[in-house]
Amino acid sequence: MSLPKQFLLGRPLRTTQIGETLLPKRIALAVFCSDPLSSVAYATEEILLILALGGTALLHLTWYVAAAIVLLMIVVVASYRQTCHAYPGGGGAYIVGSENLGPNAALTAASALMVDYVLTVAVSVVAGVAAITSAAPALSPHAVGLSVGFVVLLTLMNLRGVRESGRAFAVPTYGFVLGIYVMFAFAAVRMATGATIRAESAHLPIHSSGTFVGLGTVLLAMRAFASGCTALTGVEAISNGVPAFKEPKSRNAATTLAVMCLLSVTMFTGITVLAMVYHVHVATDPRRLGLPPGTSMPTALAQIARATFANWHFLFYYVQAATAGVLILAANTAFNGFPLLASILARDRYLPRQLHNRGDRLVYSNGVILLALAAIGLIVAFKAHVSSIIQLYIIGVFISFTLSQSGMVRHWSKELAATTDRSARLRMRHSQAINAVGACMTGIVLVIVLITKFTHGAYIVIIAMPLIFMAMKGVQGHYDRVAEELRIAPGARPDPPSRIYAIILVSKIHAPTLRAVGYAHAIHAQTVEALTVSVDPAETEELREQWEAHDMGVPLKILDSPYREVTRPVLDYVGSRRTESPRDTVNVIIPEYVPGRWWEQILHNQSALRLKGRLLFTPGVTVTSVPYQLRSARDRERQHARSRM
Amino acid sequence: MSLPKQFLLGRPLRTTQIGETLLPKRIALAVFCSDPLSSVAYATEEILLILALGGTALLHLTWYVAAAIVLLMIVVVASYRQTCHAYPGGGGAYIVGSENLGPNAALTAASALMVDYVLTVAVSVVAGVAAITSAAPALSPHAVGLSVGFVVLLTLMNLRGVRESGRAFAVPTYGFVLGIYVMFAFAAVRMATGATIRAESAHLPIHSSGTFVGLGTVLLAMRAFASGCTALTGVEAISNGVPAFKEPKSRNAATTLAVMCLLSVTMFTGITVLAMVYHVHVATDPRRLGLPPGTSMPTALAQIARATFANWHFLFYYVQAATAGVLILAANTAFNGFPLLASILARDRYLPRQLHNRGDRLVYSNGVILLALAAIGLIVAFKAHVSSIIQLYIIGVFISFTLSQSGMVRHWSKELAATTDRSARLRMRHSQAINAVGACMTGIVLVIVLITKFTHGAYIVIIAMPLIFMAMKGVQGHYDRVAEELRIAPGARPDPPSRIYAIILVSKIHAPTLRAVGYAHAIHAQTVEALTVSVDPAETEELREQWEAHDMGVPLKILDSPYREVTRPVLDYVGSRRTESPRDTVNVIIPEYVPGRWWEQILHNQSALRLKGRLLFTPGVTVTSVPYQLRSARDRERQHARSRM
Repeated sequence: MSLPKQFLLGRPLRTTQIGETLLPKRIALAVFCSDPLSSVAYATEEILLILALGGTALLHLTWYVAAAIVLLMIVVVASYRQTCHAYPGGGGAYIVGSENLGPNAALTAASALMVDYVLTVAVSVVAGVAAITSAAPALSPHAVGLSVGFVVLLTLMNLRGVRESGRAFAVPTYGFVLGIYVMFAFAAVRMATGATIRAESAHLPIHSSGTFVGLGTVLLAMRAFASGCTALTGVEAISNGVPAFKEPKSRNAATTLAVMCLLSVTMFTGITVLAMVYHVHVATDPRRLGLPPGTSMPTALAQIARATFANWHFLFYYVQAATAGVLILAANTAFNGFPLLASILARDRYLPRQLHNRGDRLVYSNGVILLALAAIGLIVAFKAHVSSIIQLYIIGVFISFTLSQSGMVRHWSKELAATTDRSARLRMRHSQAINAVGACMTGIVLVIVLITKFTHGAYIVIIAMPLIFMAMKGVQGHYDRVAEELRIAPGARPDPPSRIYAIILVSKIHAPTLRAVGYAHAIHAQTVEALTVSVDPAETEELREQWEAHDMGVPLKILDSPYREVTRPVLDYVGSRRTESPRDTVNVIIPEYVPGRWWEQILHNQSALRLKGRLLFTPGVTVTSVPYQLRSARDRERQHARSRM
Repeated sequence: MSLPKQFLLGRPLRTTQIGETLLPKRIALAVFCSDPLSSVAYATEEILLILALGGTALLHLTWYVAAAIVLLMIVVVASYRQTCHAYPGGGGAYIVGSENLGPNAALTAASALMVDYVLTVAVSVVAGVAAITSAAPALSPHAVGLSVGFVVLLTLMNLRGVRESGRAFAVPTYGFVLGIYVMFAFAAVRMATGATIRAESAHLPIHSSGTFVGLGTVLLAMRAFASGCTALTGVEAISNGVPAFKEPKSRNAATTLAVMCLLSVTMFTGITVLAMVYHVHVATDPRRLGLPPGTSMPTALAQIARATFANWHFLFYYVQAATAGVLILAANTAFNGFPLLASILARDRYLPRQLHNRGDRLVYSNGVILLALAAIGLIVAFKAHVSSIIQLYIIGVFISFTLSQSGMVRHWSKELAATTDRSARLRMRHSQAINAVGACMTGIVLVIVLITKFTHGAYIVIIAMPLIFMAMKGVQGHYDRVAEELRIAPGARPDPPSRIYAIILVSKIHAPTLRAVGYAHAIHAQTVEALTVSVDPAETEELREQWEAHDMGVPLKILDSPYREVTRPVLDYVGSRRTESPRDTVNVIIPEYVPGRWWEQILHNQSALRLKGRLLFTPGVTVTSVPYQLRSARDRERQHARSRM
């Protein structure tokens, strides 16, 4: 590993060190739950934004929508606790799906998860930056740049490895939870002592974007509900990450999940209550609040915090900082999950093999980088605007929820068929019932999300998912076909070529040429000849004379090249040698001089490189590079060797 | 050559066809002189733009400035005619400089020329687009896009080869000259019959940007003169291109140069006279003409043409079209000159060797593409604004003029020293006097340009030129050091390694592995072994069992890789084999399967590729690729073979 890389990422870890990276519950909560916990920072606002379309009159629906979301969250968490117990090796939607519903359902879930991981990074980081710009409005114009910067920072942290990430993330997660509860206590005390607290936006009118009556109101409420379901994103992270817990893994994971649920539900409820009591008014378009276009509004949570803490500015800034911290680090859930999923998919030959390799620090480096690039693309494309990206978000989450819970129902059926013990069967029936309720509810929500979000951006995901699905199928098909093509009969033995016809490519007579000719002599080929392409007749003549003067012991064959091309005449000649005796191998020997610096490489070997690439396509040909290291290359190699010690 | 390439560029030409591309005078004038001829389209305007800074009062200086430019042009052309005679093989500033003033002066001239060729393309194309937008103001916002489009078009035409370019360019060049003379005739007839013609801008006031008195006026006049010197750009193209003329090359070239001078001087004088008579008012900033900011003004030539032709709109549009045509094609001078210069510099090892190769159509394809990319960069950076780019233009032109003329003075001194014939000596003295006057005058102009243009953008060129100079020196130094390192003693003979230690890299047992083992047997290595890196213990165990089952006849060596890396353990192992017996060659044999489609390549051989790259740095190692073509690769190869016929 090079020194700059080591400085950024830390020393490489041995494979056996993987045991040392297991997580205790309190750290696991911070690593896996920053996503679901932090989503309460924007879930309430997303509900208000949709209901505000109906004007002030419909804001009271917030109570019902929030209640439905709390209920849904409890059901989903209960459902996933079953998964933790059933899959101690990690029960992501892909694994549960592939074991119980077959490969296509699993791959659908995988496509959904991959899209979601990318969106988790994008939404969380952008929402975190919104928390910062709410406290420091001067930074508003730089939202895109800040967001991209934070993604890069997360990428570097994750390339360092999982445990250090966990430690780095414990502080902001717990800091955020603490800040929200302090805010609740503060609000309770102030209101109990008779204060009437109002948000800064309470006096703003809300101009509705139309009249909503009857079915229209129901649809708007459903759309608000679908938006609020962002509070549930990331719940599956714990069941996915069971193997990262300390023993007893399953029980620790299930407990952590319950704690997470308790924290989430209380924070979400509290924030929603305060938003209603303080009359927080928000709208995607500031003009609908009677403000000039382009006005940048603080987030709902920022308005609540500012109103609650009044002159205690320090606490307001603390909540904003903690919110930004936990949101940006929530993206870490995806940085834990995505590379692991990609690695499993690569192992099953759905993705390129490179994604299966762990890097120097025991993380799947390629997956981390891929995720970061995709998230940066989304952030830039949507100009770091939370509400726009959120429209793409929830659909994939509920596809994987539904598939995963349906798979669990099936899982218990299979377990029941194999178990006779009465009390065990009873426990299984109980688990199955919970999963069945979970599957039904998440399925219904999926339909609601599909209906209400489709035209608001979700169609992008509906298009992207099948494309990812088909690409993965295609990759697997390719690997299968190749494996089939390469398969050999049992007991097949190597069949050496009868003769080797060695051809040394020559352009000048210098040290590398001598070395290549020496090598050609040493392999005892039946025929050896040197080959040159005549582009400039004068140079060729000089070469021919020198060749004789140096007594190379090998005949020099000169090819004419009327079109001044080098590659084609060589390919044609090599092909013709091959045709004359198809049982031979033609061994093309290329003398190469190897410079040590990248810019030197540009100045050399360009035609040799192109030629090598093309020769590999010629059947019955092997290509040998005989390198000659220039001084700069030897210096580079010595430096490498030293840094390796 | 692939079919799409052939469609765009035409059939490849044989090297011997180069004689067929020699140019008669009338075509050569169009090919080499579109640049100097077309620059009269903007030279007058550039003078007026500078003098306008002093308000209407200083516009009368135009007469003196224009007269000085005409005088200078005659001197420079006379000077270059001597070069045509002295250097029938092509007398560019680089060649004249290197033969008479030494390599550093020559390289300075070459740096200046390279910068100028790029600027010729940028200025000409952008000015051509300005002629178009003067006739069709609706296109003004698309100036950058149009300019880039034309550069791409020129690039494609030039990749087709030089003669066809000449033909394509004869029509617009002669069309432009004709159009300007018709305009003069029209103006003369109308004024003779008593008409008073005024430009559309004649009534606009010119607000001066300050008061210019005494030295201030002189400096402004000098700056205007420096700007007007753009009329001289491109004069050296003919002396550069003497070998492209039909026999007698030198005389034909000198005659063409004289004709060009006659056309240029008359057109420049005529346009300047009409601009003065019609009271054409221009300014870089429309506000100085009392117009709202952002107003886009027609060019001076467009104003003259519109006023002259009055209701004969057809003729106005004809002149604009011809101007645009000749200007855009003027860039062709650079497309002829730059690749040739780059090729000569590459031959002298100042530039990478790739620039010395002629392409399929006998043009130096890489040089053409390099020039186009640089020009597009400039056009985009300066937003297709003629007056801004012109500030960078003239300085390089006069550096090469001065060096070239000084070199010629030296040339004649050397000739004189070797000649005793009286009449020949008289002719040489005469030539030398002409060149001396040329060198002095261009040297003085260079100083004027340096003083007046430095802060207006010329400093960019002053910075760029030494950088290019040093880069070229560096490239040559590198090639020299490498040649020195690779040089062998006279009579040195190949020295075959005493033993070959063959190592076959293995990851799985499949057809490519069998083929590689077969090859290893055939080369009669003293030691053969197979090597695998254990990343996953289960897979390694499976490989070991299969290896024994298939009775490969070669021992399998298994390397542990605690850090899951493949490259480093192999490098270390290979290095250790090498150390044990330094007189051996270690031959690393890599089985590779070759897929035919680009996306398949991403899915395979990534670690083999990285490994091959690194092995080349290990001394005493040769690397053999034993390819196994998959079906898709064999299909691809068959298609290639078919398209070759």
